[in-house]
Amino acid sequence: MTVWTKIYVLEEPKLEKPILIQGLPGLGFVGKLTVTYLIDELGLKPFARLYSTHLTLLDGSTGIQINSNGTFFLPKFEFYAYNQKKPNIIFLTGDTQPTIYGQYEVAEHVLDFVQKYGCEKIIAVGGFQTPFERELGKVYGVFNKPHLGEELKSLGVSITRSGAITGACGIILGLGDQRNLESVGLLGATKGEYPDMEAAREVLKVVTKILGLEINLEKLNREIIEMKRRLESLHRIQTEAIGQITREFRRGPSPFYV
Amino acid sequence: MTVWTKIYVLEEPKLEKPILIQGLPGLGFVGKLTVTYLIDELGLKPFARLYSTHLTLLDGSTGIQINSNGTFFLPKFEFYAYNQKKPNIIFLTGDTQPTIYGQYEVAEHVLDFVQKYGCEKIIAVGGFQTPFERELGKVYGVFNKPHLGEELKSLGVSITRSGAITGACGIILGLGDQRNLESVGLLGATKGEYPDMEAAREVLKVVTKILGLEINLEKLNREIIEMKRRLESLHRIQTEAIGQITREFRRGPSPFYV
Amino acid sequence: MTVWTKIYVLEEPKLEKPILIQGLPGLGFVGKLTVTYLIDELGLKPFARLYSTHLTLLDGSTGIQINSNGTFFLPKFEFYAYNQKKPNIIFLTGDTQPTIYGQYEVAEHVLDFVQKYGCEKIIAVGGFQTPFERELGKVYGVFNKPHLGEELKSLGVSITRSGAITGACGIILGLGDQRNLESVGLLGATKGEYPDMEAAREVLKVVTKILGLEINLEKLNREIIEMKRRLESLHRIQTEAIGQITREFRRGPSPFYV
Amino acid sequence: MTVWTKIYVLEEPKLEKPILIQGLPGLGFVGKLTVTYLIDELGLKPFARLYSTHLTLLDGSTGIQINSNGTFFLPKFEFYAYNQKKPNIIFLTGDTQPTIYGQYEVAEHVLDFVQKYGCEKIIAVGGFQTPFERELGKVYGVFNKPHLGEELKSLGVSITRSGAITGACGIILGLGDQRNLESVGLLGATKGEYPDMEAAREVLKVVTKILGLEINLEKLNREIIEMKRRLESLHRIQTEAIGQITREFRRGPSPFYV
Repeated sequence: MTVWTKIYVLEEPKLEKPILIQGLPGLGFVGKLTVTYLIDELGLKPFARLYSTHLTLLDGSTGIQINSNGTFFLPKFEFYAYNQKKPNIIFLTGDTQPTIYGQYEVAEHVLDFVQKYGCEKIIAVGGFQTPFERELGKVYGVFNKPHLGEELKSLGVSITRSGAITGACGIILGLGDQRNLESVGLLGATKGEYPDMEAAREVLKVVTKILGLEINLEKLNREIIEMKRRLESLHRIQTEAIGQITREFRRGPSPFYV
Repeated sequence: MTVWTKIYVLEEPKLEKPILIQGLPGLGFVGKLTVTYLIDELGLKPFARLYSTHLTLLDGSTGIQINSNGTFFLPKFEFYAYNQKKPNIIFLTGDTQPTIYGQYEVAEHVLDFVQKYGCEKIIAVGGFQTPFERELGKVYGVFNKPHLGEELKSLGVSITRSGAITGACGIILGLGDQRNLESVGLLGATKGEYPDMEAAREVLKVVTKILGLEINLEKLNREIIEMKRRLESLHRIQTEAIGQITREFRRGPSPFYV
Repeated sequence: MTVWTKIYVLEEPKLEKPILIQGLPGLGFVGKLTVTYLIDELGLKPFARLYSTHLTLLDGSTGIQINSNGTFFLPKFEFYAYNQKKPNIIFLTGDTQPTIYGQYEVAEHVLDFVQKYGCEKIIAVGGFQTPFERELGKVYGVFNKPHLGEELKSLGVSITRSGAITGACGIILGLGDQRNLESVGLLGATKGEYPDMEAAREVLKVVTKILGLEINLEKLNREIIEMKRRLESLHRIQTEAIGQITREFRRGPSPFYV
Repeated sequence: MTVWTKIYVLEEPKLEKPILIQGLPGLGFVGKLTVTYLIDELGLKPFARLYSTHLTLLDGSTGIQINSNGTFFLPKFEFYAYNQKKPNIIFLTGDTQPTIYGQYEVAEHVLDFVQKYGCEKIIAVGGFQTPFERELGKVYGVFNKPHLGEELKSLGVSITRSGAITGACGIILGLGDQRNLESVGLLGATKGEYPDMEAAREVLKVVTKILGLEINLEKLNREIIEMKRRLESLHRIQTEAIGQITREFRRGPSPFYV
C-alpha cells in the first residue's frame, strides 16, 4: 500500500490513436498554460483523474488544496479527450509534478493508460529557462525519430543540441522513446520568473499546427495584457501586505504569551 | 518488512457508525489539544494502538520516548471509543505525525480500520497559522459535501476559500473524500508559537456542537491560565539553564581531553 | 531486490536462551566500545554477519571500508556467541548504524535472528550526551518491566525520566518491548566529543554485574591512559597536516590546469 | 512498478568467463575516461543497455539528456563485449552513477547480468582524491584475495591501507566479494577538479597489463594536450559569458514585467 498511483475514469471516451499532449506545472508554467488554454478553447471536461502518493503540493509538502467554495482536493493529474477531428487527442495537465522519486512511476502509469486508447505519439510541452532576451519567443524542440525532426524544423522550431530536460516533461519523453512511441518535446524559452503566457503563446502556435487545430489566440493575447496588469497589482498587494504585517508586529504580541 | 503500519486492538469496542475525530500534533498543537481534552473529559482509555515505520519522534529522528517512570515507547497513534450516546465516536490522537513519505500509508490504515466499525464521517482538527491578531479566535472550515458547508456556516465557522491543508490533517480529508466519506476539516487560527489552548477551546466549541457532546470547558479555562504561568516559568528555567551551561563552559573542559 | 538485509551464519553456535547485548557506533562510541571490550576480553570470534542496503559508511555514503592489508568490506554488523556460563550471551556490534529509514528493518532482522536462538532479553548500550561535568561517570537506564527497574536501581543505575533514545539503541528497545522481550537500555553519560572509554568503563561495570561476567578492567584502564596520549598525538598530527596542506596550496597548482 | 532496473540486450555476445571492467563517472572522471578510451581503441559497440529509476542526471535530477542532433536519452549504463583474445572482457560505463539509495540494486543487476556470461572476476576503476602533488600519477589498489594483492604489487600499484571507496566503484567491489568473485579496485590519484586524463592514463597502463591488451596511448597523450587547450578555452568562454549576462542584466528587464 505504501506507494500507489491510481487512475479513476469518470467517463470512457471514444478515441482512435490519440496523440498525448502533456503540459504540467514547471518552468514559467509554460506547459500547463499551453495545455490549459487548449482545453478551455475546445470546451473539454476531464474524463479521468490520476492520484498518486508521489504527487505533492507545489511546495513539496503532502496535503490538500482548497477550492474557493470551501471544498478541497488531493493533488492530481486530469485527462481530457478530443475526438471531433483527426488526430484524436488526449490532453494531460495537473496541479503539480511528481516528486523526484515518483517521476518514473507516474509517467509509466500515464503511458500505460494512454496506450490502452491506442496512443502512438506523445508531445510534451514545457519551458526552457534562459537569461538571454534574444532567445525569448523561440520554441526549442527535441524528438526521437528523424522525420519528427524534419517536421519541427519546417515549423520554425529550433532544434536543441545539448543540455537536459528535467522533470515530468523529460521523463515522459524518455519512457515514451523506450516504448518506441513517437516522442516530441516542445520548450518555450522563458525567464521562468512568473507564469509566462507569452512563451506559452509561441508553443501554442507550433502545437496547433502539428495537431491541425484552429485555436483563436485573441483571448490569450487579452490575457497576456491582463496578466501584466495582475502582476503590477500583485506587486501593490504584496507591498501593502508587508506594510500591514510590519504594522501588526510593530504593535507587538500581547505581553503574556511570548 | 521494510515499511509497515500495524494496529494492535487492545479491546474490541461496540460501535455503530462512529464518526472519526482526528487531532494530531501540528500547528500550535491545536488538533492534539482538542482531541486530548475530549478524551480526558469523557474518561476514555485507548482501545487500539497504531505503530508504523513512518512514525518518527517529533524531531524527525527514529527512536523511543521515555516515560517519567523509566519505561519507554515507540511513537504511536491511539484510538479511543465513545459509545454512550449517538453519534458514536472514535477519537484518534498520537505522539507525532507520519514522515512526509508515510502520510498516505498511515492515513489509509486509519481509514481501513475505522471503516471496519462502519465509519462514514471524519472530522480532522488542526491549526491554521496566521500572523494577524484579528484572526485569532476564529475557526476555519473545509468540507466535501454541500450540506456540511451549510452546517459549518450555521455554527459560525469561517469557510476557507484558498490555500492548502498540509500534513496528516489534510491527507485524511483528501483520502476520506476519495472514499466518499463525509469529510470536514476544522482549523483553529493560531500564531503557532506554542501549544495554543485558546485556539483549541474555539475548535472544541464547534466540535462539541457537531457531536452533541456536553463538555465542561472550565478545566480548559483553568489550564489556559495555568499554561500561561508555565510559559512564564519555562522562560525562567531556560534563562537559568543557559546561565548554568555558560558557567560550566566558562570553567572550561579538563586540560587533558580536548 | 531494491532493499535487503541478509544474515550470513559462519558457524552455528549452541545457545540456550541467550541475552542480546547490542552496542553500535553512536554518541561517544560508548555502545561499541563496551561491547567490543567484552568480545576481546572473552576472546570471541563472530559467528554471523549482517549486511544490509540500509548500512552505509559512517559519513552516510554507500561504499566499502578498506583494511590495512588492502582488502575491504561492506559495512556490516557482527554477532558473537558466549556459552561458557549462564546466562548465554549474543554480542552484537558493527561498523555503522542503519540509515534513518532502515532502522526498523535492520532491528527486526536482528530480533528475528536472536529469537531463533531463544533470546528473551535484550540489553542495548549506548551514550547519553550531556554538557554537565557533574553527570559524567553516571549510567542512565530505561526498562520495560518493573522488576528490571528494581534491578537497575540496586546496581546504582540512574533511571531516566524524560527525553528520548534515538537510533539503533532506541529502536531495538522499542521493537523488543513490542515483542514482549525483557528490554533494558544502559546509557553512559558522555560529552560525545570522542570515543569515550571512561563512559564505556562505567557501563561495563553495570553490564558485567547483570551478566555475572568477571571481566578485568585493567586493560581498559591502560587504554584510557593510552587514548589520552593518542588524542594529544592526533592533535599534533592534525596541526602538522594542516600546515603541510597549507604549504602545498601556497606553492599553487601548475599554471596550465586551473 | 515504483522502482526498476532493466537491461536491454541489443545483440547477444559470445563470451567465455569474461572479466568485468567498470568505469563510471566519479572523482576526476578517471573511471569513465579509462573505460571509454579502451572501448574506443578496441572499436566496440554496446551490446546491452541498463536503465533504472535509480539513474538520475549528473546533477541528481530526473530527466533526459539531449544529443547534438536533437534526439535524447534517459541516463543509462552501456555494456561492451570483447572476445578477440583471452581473457574475454565486458566493459561497463555510463552517463551517471545511481542515486545513493539505488547503488546496491543497480550493482546487483550488473553482477547478475555479467555472471550469466560466466564472469568470475571484476575490476572497478575510479579516482582517488588527494590534495598532494606528490601522489599524482600513482595508482592505488584494493583486492579481496591474496594472490590479487601480489599481482597488483608486481605491477607497481600502491596498496591502499585505510579509508573507504564510495559510490558505484565501492559497491560493485563489496558485492562482488560477497559473491566470491575476484574483485580488484584500481584508483588513479587525482585532484578531482576536472576530467583527469593523466590519472586515467596511469590506470590504463595497469589495466592493459592485467588484461594483456596492447593499447596505443598516443591518442590519449594528444588528447591530454588537447584537453589542456580546451580547459583554457572553457575559461575564456565562461569569462565572456559572464560578461554578456552582466551586460544583459545591466540593460535591465523591460519596464512592464517585473
